[in-house]
Amino acid sequence: MHNYFLQQAIDLAVDNVKMHNGGPYGAVIVKQGKVIAASGNRVTANIDPTAHAEVMAIRLACQVLKNFKLNGCTLYTSCEPCPMCLGAIYWAHLDNVYYACGREDAAKAGFDDSFIYDEIAMPPKKRQIAMLQLEMNDAQKPFLTWEQQENATLY
Amino acid sequence: MHNYFLQQAIDLAVDNVKMHNGGPYGAVIVKQGKVIAASGNRVTANIDPTAHAEVMAIRLACQVLKNFKLNGCTLYTSCEPCPMCLGAIYWAHLDNVYYACGREDAAKAGFDDSFIYDEIAMPPKKRQIAMLQLEMNDAQKPFLTWEQQENATLY
Repeated sequence: MHNYFLQQAIDLAVDNVKMHNGGPYGAVIVKQGKVIAASGNRVTANIDPTAHAEVMAIRLACQVLKNFKLNGCTLYTSCEPCPMCLGAIYWAHLDNVYYACGREDAAKAGFDDSFIYDEIAMPPKKRQIAMLQLEMNDAQKPFLTWEQQENATLY
Repeated sequence: MHNYFLQQAIDLAVDNVKMHNGGPYGAVIVKQGKVIAASGNRVTANIDPTAHAEVMAIRLACQVLKNFKLNGCTLYTSCEPCPMCLGAIYWAHLDNVYYACGREDAAKAGFDDSFIYDEIAMPPKKRQIAMLQLEMNDAQKPFLTWEQQENATLY
């Protein structure tokens, strides 16, 4: 069963390359034994560096279910999710994930997944893309406004 | 200069809460001293768990520049980027990032940023959202197809 859906993700990844949509990646999201969303990587086709197969499938599944949480859903992806997609998986509250290739296979093919995993462990200001915290008087104002807001929708 | 643009990101975050667009976050992207893209968090408004302020601003900036790489651009964000947004920042090849609040402030306000950073350090199958690698005969086929493809667009 899991192999069946993971094969679909792999087939999508192969087709995606042949159709020049983007990188060699595919993902499907399954709920109660049915595929509810599927996508290849669309970075180049959409001019969107966030349009990885997993992110695209998550966005699509949320539109299908009209819900920004995907509890009860499983993601099948042709390659181990990069840190961006891993974050997206947590924010979407998927149940679990199955993948075929690992981050080291992506690295061999010229993709930065493994490098980004290494960068996350660095202190923000020492990363190759330096991330610097500035002291701002209003820093907490967004969170304070959020806490005071009635009917704020948590996600 | 950096404080000026970071204040804009904070103001956007506050307005975003008041307009019920999503969470208390805002981001702006600056190129050569000019704001080229700005967004609040749109998770609830767009029914899209990936629609964090940073991701939205990156997507928008790429459309403006018609380029999936944002070299020469700086991101200003009201809060330290979560792992999803950190990944997006690397894939977008931004120059650097300035932020006001830290991940611990987000955690205090009820957001999972800090938790997701902890999860990344876990072995995939031991994460709270378990990520399991299956052995598949075709696992490498997408990457092999990619390597054989003429004119594949790297990103």
